Formats: sequence, C-alpha cells, structure tokens
Amino acid sequence: MATEPLITALVQHPCGESVEENLARSERGIRHAAHEGAALVLLQELHTTPYFCQTEEVRHFDRAEPVPGPTTERLGRLAAELGVVIVASLFERRGPGLHHNTAVVLERDGHIAGLYRKMHIPDDPGFHEKFYFAPGDLGFRPVETSVGRLGVLVCWDQWFPEAARLMALAGADLLLYPTAIGWDPRDDEEEQRRQFEAWQIVQRGHAVANGLPLLCCNRSGFEPDPSGCTAGIRFWGGSFASGPQGEMLAEACNDSEETLVVSIDTGRSSAVRRIWPFLRDRRVDAYGDIRHLWIDPHPPAEGD
Amino acid sequence: MATEPLITALVQHPCGESVEENLARSERGIRHAAHEGAALVLLQELHTTPYFCQTEEVRHFDRAEPVPGPTTERLGRLAAELGVVIVASLFERRGPGLHHNTAVVLERDGHIAGLYRKMHIPDDPGFHEKFYFAPGDLGFRPVETSVGRLGVLVCWDQWFPEAARLMALAGADLLLYPTAIGWDPRDDEEEQRRQFEAWQIVQRGHAVANGLPLLCCNRSGFEPDPSGCTAGIRFWGGSFASGPQGEMLAEACNDSEETLVVSIDTGRSSAVRRIWPFLRDRRVDAYGDIRHLWIDPHPPAEGD
Repeated sequence: MATEPLITALVQHPCGESVEENLARSERGIRHAAHEGAALVLLQELHTTPYFCQTEEVRHFDRAEPVPGPTTERLGRLAAELGVVIVASLFERRGPGLHHNTAVVLERDGHIAGLYRKMHIPDDPGFHEKFYFAPGDLGFRPVETSVGRLGVLVCWDQWFPEAARLMALAGADLLLYPTAIGWDPRDDEEEQRRQFEAWQIVQRGHAVANGLPLLCCNRSGFEPDPSGCTAGIRFWGGSFASGPQGEMLAEACNDSEETLVVSIDTGRSSAVRRIWPFLRDRRVDAYGDIRHLWIDPHPPAEGD
Repeated sequence: MATEPLITALVQHPCGESVEENLARSERGIRHAAHEGAALVLLQELHTTPYFCQTEEVRHFDRAEPVPGPTTERLGRLAAELGVVIVASLFERRGPGLHHNTAVVLERDGHIAGLYRKMHIPDDPGFHEKFYFAPGDLGFRPVETSVGRLGVLVCWDQWFPEAARLMALAGADLLLYPTAIGWDPRDDEEEQRRQFEAWQIVQRGHAVANGLPLLCCNRSGFEPDPSGCTAGIRFWGGSFASGPQGEMLAEACNDSEETLVVSIDTGRSSAVRRIWPFLRDRRVDAYGDIRHLWIDPHPPAEGD
C-alpha cells in the first residue's frame, strides 16, 4: 500500500479573448505549482479560451486544434522542463466537422500519456455544448501516468455517479475534473448558494462512494454573454480537493486567480476501502437497468 | 407538476432489549408526527430491537417475524387510525433459514403497500449482517402509495449510487433510508467527524445526482457489544431531510430521541430536473461495465 504523499496543484484563473494571455496564466500557475513541489497539475476546463459556448457561432470552430497540436506541444515542453504531469483541457479538432471537449494528460517527460473525451455533454441556456462537442467515444478509462492512474472526467460528467464509478472500477487512483461552471447573475443568492453547494456535494459524494481522492479545478471570473440574451456567467472558482471520505482538504476562493497546492495521502484510499468495503458488496446482478434511460413499470418488451 | 407540500416525519430513538418499549417509542413518535400534520412517517432501521448484529448468535433469529406479522399488523392499525403512511423496518422471517432486513410500507388505510428487502448487506466488526440477512431479491422498485412513489432503501444501500439511481429511474418521487449507523468509540474525534460527514455527503449526493428529495432516519443511543470484543456502537442519530439539490432541510440531534417534522416541496424535484437535466444526458451506451465488480484492463474474455 503506497503511502507517499502526492503533491498536486489546481490552477484556477479567469480567461479573456487572448489565447496567449490565457496560456500565460495557466503557465504562471504551473510554474508556481512546480516551485511548491507539485508533481501533478490540473488545469481548468478550456483554459486557453473564453467559455465560447455561451452562444452558438460557427466561427468558434476556428478555436479548435488537433491533439497533438500547438497547445499540447507547448504544455508538453513545460511538463518536461518542470518534471510535472499536467492535465490540460482543450477544444479538440479531431476531423473536419468532428470536435470534442478533450482532456489531455501530459507526462512529466512531455509526451502525451492519454486522452479523455468528455462523455456527458450539457446544453442549457449559456452552456450550448451540444453544438460544439461530439460526445466522447473513449469511455471511462483512467490514464496511466508516473503519478498514478488518473480518472480524468470533465465538468458536466461530475453530476453523473456512473462516470466516477466506472473510472474507479477501471482502477483510477484519483478522480480529476477540469470544469467551467458559474452563477447566472439573475438567480437569487439562495439559489446561487444551493447550486454551488450541490456542485461540491455531488463530487464529494463520488469520492465517498468510491473511496477515492478527488481534484476539481474550476474557472473564475465573469464572462458576458456576447448575444446579450442572458446576463453572462460569473464562474465561481472554488476549485477544491477532497479525500476519499469526502473530507474537504483545500478550497480556492470564488472570485480570482489562484493556484491551490494540496498534498494527497495516496495510502488513505486503500485504508478507507478496508473499513468501508463498498466494492465488495456491489449487487452487480441487479444493476442491469442502469443501461436504460427510464425503467418502464410495464416494458413493451423484455430486455436483460 | 404537483406543488403540494408533503409533511413528513423521521422518528429517531434509542432501542433497548424490550420490543414493547421500542415499539412504544416508535408509536409515540408516529402519534406526535401525525399530530403535527405528517402524512408520511419514516422509522429507523430495525426499530423494534436492539442492533443485535453486533455479534453472531443463532438465538437472535428468534427476533425475526413474518411479513405480514404482529408488527406490521400493529403498525397497520396505527397507520389506519392516524391516516398516515408508515415506513417500518423489520427482521423478516421469510422461511425456515431465510431471513431479510426488510422495510415495509404501510398505507394510510393500514394495508401493506409494498416491501423492500435490503439489497446491499454489510459485514464489518460490529455489523455482522451477512450472518443474519440474505441479500434482497426484489431489486430496486419504488413502492406506490397515496403520498407518492417511495424509493425505500436501507442503511448500507446508502453508500451505493447505483441503488439511488435505479430507484430514480424506476420513478421514485422520494428516496428514504431507515438506518442504524454510529461511531466506534475507539476512533478519534477527527475520524468520527469524517465518518458522520461522509454519511451525510454521500446521501445528499444521491439527492443531487437524481434531483430527488431524500429522508434518512437513523437510530440514536449507545449499545454495548455483548461479546466485549469491541467498544460497542454510539448510534449517531442525525436523521435528516435533503432537498433535490442536496440542500439540508432539517437535521435531528446526535444523541437522543427526536421526531423531526419536515415539509417537502413536491414540485421542486421536477423544477430542478428542468434546470439540471441529468436524466437527458446519461450515456447509457457506455455504462455496461457497471455490471462488473472490477474492470480488468485485459479481460480474459469479451462480454458486452
């Protein structure tokens, strides 16, 4: 049972129109994290661009880039220079007319250790992701790295217990979520508080249910809606790390740039799974209906 | 979309050796709840007996009773007298040598509306349930009642997101957990706090992930370990109700008898599912591996 502490860092920042300035912010955070001893750095969702999904505009496809591509090469060089594993989040152009919301894991020698393509794609006012991103086709597979098997998921995935569970069953040592979520300024304070807490609770719940530590890195700053249809999004920051009992290990501020450095006790997960052996007791014989959207009391035809 | 408030109550109390006294405590709580206007009353797990699973002793099988049986008849009469739906939790003797940890839902006219047999059975020091209870064979089916479709689960089930999800997919309007969990007095204060919070968080996480309100009724009081092998269990009470965003609606004390009356806004769930349409976006095409205990990177033979 490993008991080495793993120093991790979450780099949270606002984004503007300039890719160069956004990447400079990410890079500043990564350098700071490495200086503090971090071996693993998690960046926020789509950290090189504004959150362009507030509107549906074909010109935004120009923002996409291939993987490997300019950003993975740049971050790969940085990973190698600093000797850190970096989890980046990009708008991937996979082919003409086929794009994904993709997390790329860069190994500390700079090579691409693996990809995760966002599986659950939202579509709500201000979050028109179904227009831009094809749902991922890689399933829920952790990426093997020098710092462990990384169960990388992206934003909307964080509301789905199935995603966290499948990563855990596939051997993830850690759950990681790059995210871009925030408040609708038109909601009242109570609703805003409920949403922020729900977002923390559901993820800490995944940590508990799977006995895994969890990192979540979220964007900060206000971004207006270019169409003027909504009041824009106030990204709520609040990046955090949770232990395998859902205990809050560290939490960033809500409203500005912050690099949160957190030490993870990598032996704790196995210890917690011994006192709470949930994986032993799963009723896999009775979970077949999870593969349905809804369970009709009188199904038209018998399946499983 | 229904918007009627549903008045619910959670009856939490310590249990001693006398079934008569334990049932009197449950009944006192039910009467108080009905007097306060409750239409639905949730009792704690195995509320008629001490938590006998601290040790493995064949004599404890004498505590089991059939369903229907003396307790369901008594509580059925009470349900009819007060016009309330009662969720009770019993040690069920189903046949010679076949016992379950069973929740029984009594309709407000006194008849049995349905059963749920605990699907996930724990076995840890102080919680030797695998000795007493055969795992349930009814699956995850809500019980149809005059106050809605009740997604009744029991204690250890509360750590398994699959259980809550399957109840939600089968149309549950509300998740309900009778439980009996507590502190090992030998754990330090920090571990005790982590465990209590993990227990709340994982359940509130189910509420969020499924957009459902949730009631959890837990036993209180200290019960010594008759074998002297452990330091006994200090049942932590803390019965609570959560809304469909995981927001805490009400919470009972940790250490004594309490009947917690909580009004549930039954229209809130549908409203929350409109702003957070998780059920729309589930990747049912990619969840097949949930039916495995572990996902081998190189499976010996291809299944699904």
